[in-house]
Amino acid sequence: LWHNENIFYAAQDQFKEMLAGYHSPEWIDQRLYDTEIRNLQHFGYGVKGFVLSMIETAIELTEGRVTGSEIQTIVDFGREMLATPVELLPHVEEVVTALSQDYPTMVITKGDLLEQETKVARSGLADLFTAIEVVSAKTPEMYRAVLRRHNINPHHFVMIGNSPKSDIMPIVELGGWAVHIPYHTTWEHELVEKPANQAELYSELEHVGQLPQLIQELSEKQ
Amino acid sequence: LWHNENIFYAAQDQFKEMLAGYHSPEWIDQRLYDTEIRNLQHFGYGVKGFVLSMIETAIELTEGRVTGSEIQTIVDFGREMLATPVELLPHVEEVVTALSQDYPTMVITKGDLLEQETKVARSGLADLFTAIEVVSAKTPEMYRAVLRRHNINPHHFVMIGNSPKSDIMPIVELGGWAVHIPYHTTWEHELVEKPANQAELYSELEHVGQLPQLIQELSEKQ
Repeated sequence: LWHNENIFYAAQDQFKEMLAGYHSPEWIDQRLYDTEIRNLQHFGYGVKGFVLSMIETAIELTEGRVTGSEIQTIVDFGREMLATPVELLPHVEEVVTALSQDYPTMVITKGDLLEQETKVARSGLADLFTAIEVVSAKTPEMYRAVLRRHNINPHHFVMIGNSPKSDIMPIVELGGWAVHIPYHTTWEHELVEKPANQAELYSELEHVGQLPQLIQELSEKQ
Repeated sequence: LWHNENIFYAAQDQFKEMLAGYHSPEWIDQRLYDTEIRNLQHFGYGVKGFVLSMIETAIELTEGRVTGSEIQTIVDFGREMLATPVELLPHVEEVVTALSQDYPTMVITKGDLLEQETKVARSGLADLFTAIEVVSAKTPEMYRAVLRRHNINPHHFVMIGNSPKSDIMPIVELGGWAVHIPYHTTWEHELVEKPANQAELYSELEHVGQLPQLIQELSEKQ
């Protein structure tokens, strides 16, 4: 719905600049990624976990020589990330407005509860959605629980998202319809093979503006 | 339901020991508390925000001289806190088991989503609850939304908790019944005046074991 990954990449660029005297940007990227993955199970998704991973990476890559004021700067990156205005993707506002008149619409997002609630609130779209669900991970079990809670039959459910791993594969597994709209960057961890066998339950679009026509086609098929 | 605050206090004790060469324990407590309150709106409740506040406090109180390995130790405090086994309070297991047979029971907890979900899962109690709701803050609005979502009339709702600010006052405001069971420590930020006027909607117990009898009395009154 809104720009997100680019906020992480922008902070990561500043982080690499800070450590430029110690290591190459590629190596910093690699070590930060490894730290993030190792920390996922403890810290989950979101800005706070990302900041803690940057701090750990900085300590590791400088062999402890990183200064207090540099660490403070990393924490400040996080606070800035959280304060970044929510910038809707093209077509989102009119498409969500239109679809929400004909269908119940729900945001399912993973990550930090306060962070995601704040984002939805600041997006100006909150009132258009029937429900907003923040989950700790987008697994088939988690989707199943959300759909059950809302009495939604997966066969009548369309998920739209940019992450093959989080938004597409689990839905195809549940028998729902998944619509992939790639974002120009996708975090390495979210990349998986796209669905093959169940291709009839899967669509790919270039941008959100194409969604109403697809939904129209899907509803005529049913 | 389980010990929680003491995990924060234990980490805070280690933190004070680490900075003992710089400042008195009282001053460290005070500065950490101020930092936590300032950060609440950005970072919310939970271990990750607490770790970031400890890091900022350490940088501030050492005027930036805190070392990389000390910062790493603070991050490790956080990981240990998250890994601490969930230790149920006395009577909780039998009381929740008994009450859940007669009434729908729900956990409403604030803080970090992953952290709280993990705790509920590890408590062994998850299956006893009809629902588990993690919220970013325990305000009257948030309780109202949760109760509406579950079609619960506030007048038929009993909230049991240890925090006057988060568990008691908002419920009394909504017209629900609030049962205060003090924990031996309560974070300064959660302390408020107890309800006075609406005293008939409020009970105080010493421990969870006294709850079934109170619920029995309340249900006879209705």
